[in-house]
Amino acid sequence: MTSLSRTIRLRVAYDGTRYSGWQIQPGRTTVQGTLAEAIHRVSGEEILPQGASRTDAGVHALDQVVAFTTQSLHEPAVWVRALNAWLPHDITVTAGDLARAGFDPVSASTSKRYRYRIHDAAPKPVLSRHLVWRWWGGLDVETMRAAAPALVGEHNFTSFEALHSPRRSKIRTIHTLSVTRTAVLGGLGDEVWIEVEGNGFLYNMVRIIAGSLVMVGAGRRSPAWLGEALAARSRPAAGPTAPPEGLCLVEIKLAADPPDSPAP
Amino acid sequence: MTSLSRTIRLRVAYDGTRYSGWQIQPGRTTVQGTLAEAIHRVSGEEILPQGASRTDAGVHALDQVVAFTTQSLHEPAVWVRALNAWLPHDITVTAGDLARAGFDPVSASTSKRYRYRIHDAAPKPVLSRHLVWRWWGGLDVETMRAAAPALVGEHNFTSFEALHSPRRSKIRTIHTLSVTRTAVLGGLGDEVWIEVEGNGFLYNMVRIIAGSLVMVGAGRRSPAWLGEALAARSRPAAGPTAPPEGLCLVEIKLAADPPDSPAP
Repeated sequence: MTSLSRTIRLRVAYDGTRYSGWQIQPGRTTVQGTLAEAIHRVSGEEILPQGASRTDAGVHALDQVVAFTTQSLHEPAVWVRALNAWLPHDITVTAGDLARAGFDPVSASTSKRYRYRIHDAAPKPVLSRHLVWRWWGGLDVETMRAAAPALVGEHNFTSFEALHSPRRSKIRTIHTLSVTRTAVLGGLGDEVWIEVEGNGFLYNMVRIIAGSLVMVGAGRRSPAWLGEALAARSRPAAGPTAPPEGLCLVEIKLAADPPDSPAP
Repeated sequence: MTSLSRTIRLRVAYDGTRYSGWQIQPGRTTVQGTLAEAIHRVSGEEILPQGASRTDAGVHALDQVVAFTTQSLHEPAVWVRALNAWLPHDITVTAGDLARAGFDPVSASTSKRYRYRIHDAAPKPVLSRHLVWRWWGGLDVETMRAAAPALVGEHNFTSFEALHSPRRSKIRTIHTLSVTRTAVLGGLGDEVWIEVEGNGFLYNMVRIIAGSLVMVGAGRRSPAWLGEALAARSRPAAGPTAPPEGLCLVEIKLAADPPDSPAP
């Protein structure tokens, strides 16, 4: 990086339906790769933007944090407009500002909030089928609520991580975990929304939490089972991995810049 | 019809995005044609179901009323389940019952309610882009509300009908016309919703009303202009036809059966 380089920080929303996830992969359409192409269109640079969360194939985001370092002198607002002009209809930059040099979205994230949407009403969710998991048969939100507190706090979440995952520490902290029946305006019947905020998540962790809570809400497991599944520290002890389309990255909170950090 | 025939009445919801509208047309994928195929799968009959509203290509429905007369002895609940098993993911039957012989959804409809959704926030509506008209620049809901009452009541709506339309009478009654700014949960910014209920609508009437109200909300026309456009009885006097994807048929009210009608 020269002294003239700038680090641009973006907030990005996308419909993950037609993407093979965030992370760039050869021969696949990815959100990271699509953003890199748009950056290349704007400044001619070959830059791989970094995202705070590696969302999986089919997972959506309303507030992904993305950063890249550029030699271009475009102001952030110009970047936002220019990128939006090149990006396809299912990715949009909602905001942009200058970050300090060396800003890294992954290490700067202090908490992430995800929402998992389940459509358990009888009619097919014809207008929102790309955004929900369709569950056949009503869910009992009260029993899901009774089970949820077992996962809140700092725990070893081995039971809620996909097998063969590379992350070394299985310790994460869940700050809040709520289950609500939500009237979605303009849809067909209401939905069950699971919202979880934590300092970080293991691979597939939110989807395994959602799949486990649905086992409870469907009456296939007791509320007390969820805590037992956590204590077992074994993936088979927990419930199934809910499908990706119901999941959305809703918010990322960032740490304040360190006091001795270089000004943007 | 033999004395054993039954008239089945359905409530049907669909995402109109990939359909060339309700009405069957050779070589096109239509909602009516897709329902006819599903009926054929269930009973082997070649029946064209009748709909209360001929929605255009790209227009959605949450509550279309559909009826067909069958020789099959299936109960309505069996029809609902069987049709849903054959229908694609973007059409669903939400309810079914027996109607009196001769029931006709068009003549039985006493009022229809449509919703038109406009996304006027800055970010692209990445998750709901098939359901809204994206308008660049905020709309002033107050001026739209000030204009709307001019259209309520019984009027000659020639100005709000597509040119070269076949319908003879241009007289329709709008019962209610509301404009609200609506917080859509799980989306990017709120939307402007236009809801209109009336005894019937001319071709493209709701979309021309929406396009005209947007001209007012965008400050391109005064609120008083809307009444002048109505009085002109001339299509060019009104605003543009809003695109189909923002429109949804929300509710159809049916007349009670005549007292001398044959029992279902």
